Amino acid sequence: MEIKEYLKILKEEIHSTVFATVDENGLPQARVIDIMLVDDKSLYFITAKGKEFYHQLMNKKYVAISGMTGGKGSLNKKAISLRGKVKNVGQELLDKVFEVNTYMCDIYPEKESRMALEVFQLYEGQGEYFDLSTKPITREAFTLGEAVEVKGGYFVTDKCRGCKICYSKCPQKCIDISVKPVVIKQENCLHCGNCMSVCPFSAVEKR
Amino acid sequence: MEIKEYLKILKEEIHSTVFATVDENGLPQARVIDIMLVDDKSLYFITAKGKEFYHQLMNKKYVAISGMTGGKGSLNKKAISLRGKVKNVGQELLDKVFEVNTYMCDIYPEKESRMALEVFQLYEGQGEYFDLSTKPITREAFTLGEAVEVKGGYFVTDKCRGCKICYSKCPQKCIDISVKPVVIKQENCLHCGNCMSVCPFSAVEKR
Repeated sequence: MEIKEYLKILKEEIHSTVFATVDENGLPQARVIDIMLVDDKSLYFITAKGKEFYHQLMNKKYVAISGMTGGKGSLNKKAISLRGKVKNVGQELLDKVFEVNTYMCDIYPEKESRMALEVFQLYEGQGEYFDLSTKPITREAFTLGEAVEVKGGYFVTDKCRGCKICYSKCPQKCIDISVKPVVIKQENCLHCGNCMSVCPFSAVEKR
Repeated sequence: MEIKEYLKILKEEIHSTVFATVDENGLPQARVIDIMLVDDKSLYFITAKGKEFYHQLMNKKYVAISGMTGGKGSLNKKAISLRGKVKNVGQELLDKVFEVNTYMCDIYPEKESRMALEVFQLYEGQGEYFDLSTKPITREAFTLGEAVEVKGGYFVTDKCRGCKICYSKCPQKCIDISVKPVVIKQENCLHCGNCMSVCPFSAVEKR
């Protein structure tokens, strides 16, 4: 999928997500935040100057977002996790936010009650899309802005002797054992680490 | 509400939540995690030893959780945010997790594919419950285990002269102006900070 499709899922299908930040003690904090606007390569959200969240954003200029589509039961949900750099873009987009997300007028009814609100943009980062409804599960990585894509996961090296013990313990059976070294299908991997812990030849690497 | 009711909402109504942790660079990370079991005063979730999440849990022994009920539109959702201490309780409860949450058998089908999984318990922390469907909104704080309740928010001091400018800018009109000093109704406050920023007498304090 293209970046703007992930962003569209975040805005239209998920909309209410959880934003994680780090507080002054280095501990995580999380709260529900709606995705207010998206363009082709970034997303926008708002918060009020009086909130801890605002100060954490101004301080670290970094957030991690995670959210999922409705769907009944966890297995029918699609999830997106995204982390990266944010900046305060002031109040210029505020009217548009309220125009597009009219329900916000119930929370901040009068224009003058909106004075504390400011818009933030997530403009650079990396994300992952998960679909647990497929068998095996599907995961795809993507990047936003100038972030460099990091391909984390488990990989099989030349030390592999093709014993297939890894396959026997793999919950998703996402290892191609028709070749040697065997190949972990990254797009289906849960990152549980079973393959690495059972390999008798230490052929599996975590990157 | 009692603690166990919040926990029941987390397990039954919300179930899929977002867990936030801090990575080795001090940056937040977030992912969707299901609440697998609850008892009267704690909750349980699982993860696999191969995941970054596992290592972050073992390292900081602290998470922030946030999630919301389904409901159509943000205004019909109830949200719970909770942060606190976690500990690894091994694999003893693993069979029960799969018994209670049978859908997990689709992700980790064979028993031997579950070898990487371990159960964690959130046993102490503080939380907030939000209901945006009421007018004004409702928020309630609660604690888990031996955590000391922190009552953060905005409070009016004796410097108040009863000018009511704060009320005019309050999005939720949650300030009792029939008394002097006026009183902010903590259970309805958005923490936007408008009252503090407009008070001509610096009578509003953030705690």
